[in-house]
Amino acid sequence: MVDLNQPHHRLNILTGEKVLVSPHRNNRPWQGKVEDIVSGNLPAYDPTCYLCPTNKRADGTDNPDYQDTFVFTNDFSAILENTAEGTFNQADLLQATAERGLCKVITFSPRHDLTLPEMDISAILKVVNLWQQEFNILAQKEWIKYIQIFENKGAIMGCSNPHPHGQIWSQSSLPNEILIETARQKAYYEKNNTSMLQAYIELELSLNERVIIDNDHFVALVPYWATWPFETMIISKRHLQHIGQFNEEEKADLAKTLQELTIRYDNIFSTSFPYSAGMHQAPINDGAHEEWHWHMHFYPPLLRSASIKKFMVGYEMLGSPQRDITPEQAAAIIKKQSTVHYKKA
Amino acid sequence: MVDLNQPHHRLNILTGEKVLVSPHRNNRPWQGKVEDIVSGNLPAYDPTCYLCPTNKRADGTDNPDYQDTFVFTNDFSAILENTAEGTFNQADLLQATAERGLCKVITFSPRHDLTLPEMDISAILKVVNLWQQEFNILAQKEWIKYIQIFENKGAIMGCSNPHPHGQIWSQSSLPNEILIETARQKAYYEKNNTSMLQAYIELELSLNERVIIDNDHFVALVPYWATWPFETMIISKRHLQHIGQFNEEEKADLAKTLQELTIRYDNIFSTSFPYSAGMHQAPINDGAHEEWHWHMHFYPPLLRSASIKKFMVGYEMLGSPQRDITPEQAAAIIKKQSTVHYKKA
Ligand SMILES: O=P(O)(O)O[C@H]1O[C@H](CO)[C@@H](O)[C@H](O)[C@H]1O
Ligand SMILES: O=P(O)(O)O[C@H]1O[C@H](CO)[C@@H](O)[C@H](O)[C@H]1O
Repeated sequence: MVDLNQPHHRLNILTGEKVLVSPHRNNRPWQGKVEDIVSGNLPAYDPTCYLCPTNKRADGTDNPDYQDTFVFTNDFSAILENTAEGTFNQADLLQATAERGLCKVITFSPRHDLTLPEMDISAILKVVNLWQQEFNILAQKEWIKYIQIFENKGAIMGCSNPHPHGQIWSQSSLPNEILIETARQKAYYEKNNTSMLQAYIELELSLNERVIIDNDHFVALVPYWATWPFETMIISKRHLQHIGQFNEEEKADLAKTLQELTIRYDNIFSTSFPYSAGMHQAPINDGAHEEWHWHMHFYPPLLRSASIKKFMVGYEMLGSPQRDITPEQAAAIIKKQSTVHYKKA
Repeated sequence: MVDLNQPHHRLNILTGEKVLVSPHRNNRPWQGKVEDIVSGNLPAYDPTCYLCPTNKRADGTDNPDYQDTFVFTNDFSAILENTAEGTFNQADLLQATAERGLCKVITFSPRHDLTLPEMDISAILKVVNLWQQEFNILAQKEWIKYIQIFENKGAIMGCSNPHPHGQIWSQSSLPNEILIETARQKAYYEKNNTSMLQAYIELELSLNERVIIDNDHFVALVPYWATWPFETMIISKRHLQHIGQFNEEEKADLAKTLQELTIRYDNIFSTSFPYSAGMHQAPINDGAHEEWHWHMHFYPPLLRSASIKKFMVGYEMLGSPQRDITPEQAAAIIKKQSTVHYKKA
């Protein structure tokens, strides 16, 4: 047995990596960097914002007067569709491979001042529908092997524009995290003949210690191996490989789940809760991936208040990630939040 | 072949992970978060600093009136010496192991207002000597399997006190990065009968494109797979497993190398250049680790100026790390810096 009130490490079953948990360290005083508080007083329309309807973008085109969502190719894409193939290997020591890809931007709303937790479920559903539609379009390109749908929320998470938006990067090879999660899920699937995350959510639902939301089609929980202070995952109850397979009910339930989870987040510190969030799903145009089970990760950096974050530095970069409150304590805090947004309460 | 001016990924031979390089994306405008500029006007002694000589610490003890360096056990250690052993495993899905450890803090100087690049080589040598001495003392505890020596520099890197200091975390199990680097170095060593980093520095010295410093005992370079904008590594020329094996000449040369590298860093943006840096070395009390080759990583976050950093978020957290300037461009910028600190020039 392990005393979970004492320092210990836990295994991330999706990556095989450890996280160091230091439950006794919760009360450490903080004399370091304090982040700016987000004012939250944004206009509904900002004439200088390149994402607002009708405004001009960096490439000179005008945005349409869109009513719900809007998708376009990033004017500063990190990967490009026309890159020629090629590989390089010098003595196994210097190795490089050309990467083809497409970077798209999706606005979630014409309103400059909204974020997911402040949007109606019907408006969030339009975002979910667009994610599925874009996934299906991109998946038709044979050379695309992986589609990463994600959102950086908040300046502290590198988001360069508060207008609610996310990104979709699709590319010709599999990123690190997908390679690792594929291998781990495959090993489990071959050994147990069932999806690892299926077994995991069944166990979590029976224990009911880390579960935040449990509806018809999704479970939202703090994973046993959570690294970021209030890290969560949304996992589909059906063993689905990717968002292309979601039916209408599942899309509606995902919209509901996203709204409730992000409202709870905002309510923790009465602030627009920053995070990077994104779906992990099976590679495409790459044969069957029965082992894969769709899920979405939320990596939020705040630790103790709207202005004090967890730094993943030093020991974390060179050794293993480390956390100061236990996943169970974090789950209890998220669970006790209201499901009404603090701005509307 | 690969056109290195087009998007591509490179392999980190120490971890097996990819980094996505987007050379064309260098000119992306930045409208996001801007960091505070460090004032740099610190007093030589700060009566409120818990690291300055003679001041009181959190545990109530007074610091000695030390003249060079000072080492003590962290008052808020993340791991503790007296944790009982234990493991837990539920269905391979929930796995935890108790972790024993010791967290020490090392001040680099009695002066509150200095950092490594502003210290004399003789003063830096005292830090190197203390690192070796502490390593040797900790290695005598049979239960300690790994010793992580590191420094978080700058508030932006989670450093909670500007007084120059580093940390040493030692523990009963191997952290993620060490497990991975051990496996990769071992595979190479068994296949080629030589240290991977030995072969790597020979190749880099012959190409001379990414090498910053080349002296009798160390090479400092921007690795081919650098992830952070100005990431570097210091690698020992002798195939040594850990700092316990350094001779007097090597310690003196490491002090010189640290001074030159950090001066070049400070000069890039005429600012106290933030980073997390630390040594990677062989596990101890764990049999022979012939495959291991001592090295030190520098992970600095600044990208374009003293106030604009690279955010490792979103795609990077969910997929693979991504960089906007090539390692070769970064090496050229570091190489053209003066070796005289900008404050003294
Ligand atoms: O121990 P410190 O300096 O208070 O804390 C800093 O370094 C630690 C080790 O890298 C990290 O876990 C903390 O997040 C960081 O703020
Ligand atoms: O593309 P953006 O929003 O300008 O940039 C942001 O997201 C990208 C993808 O996660 C990251 O590479 C950048 O570091 C971050 O600032």
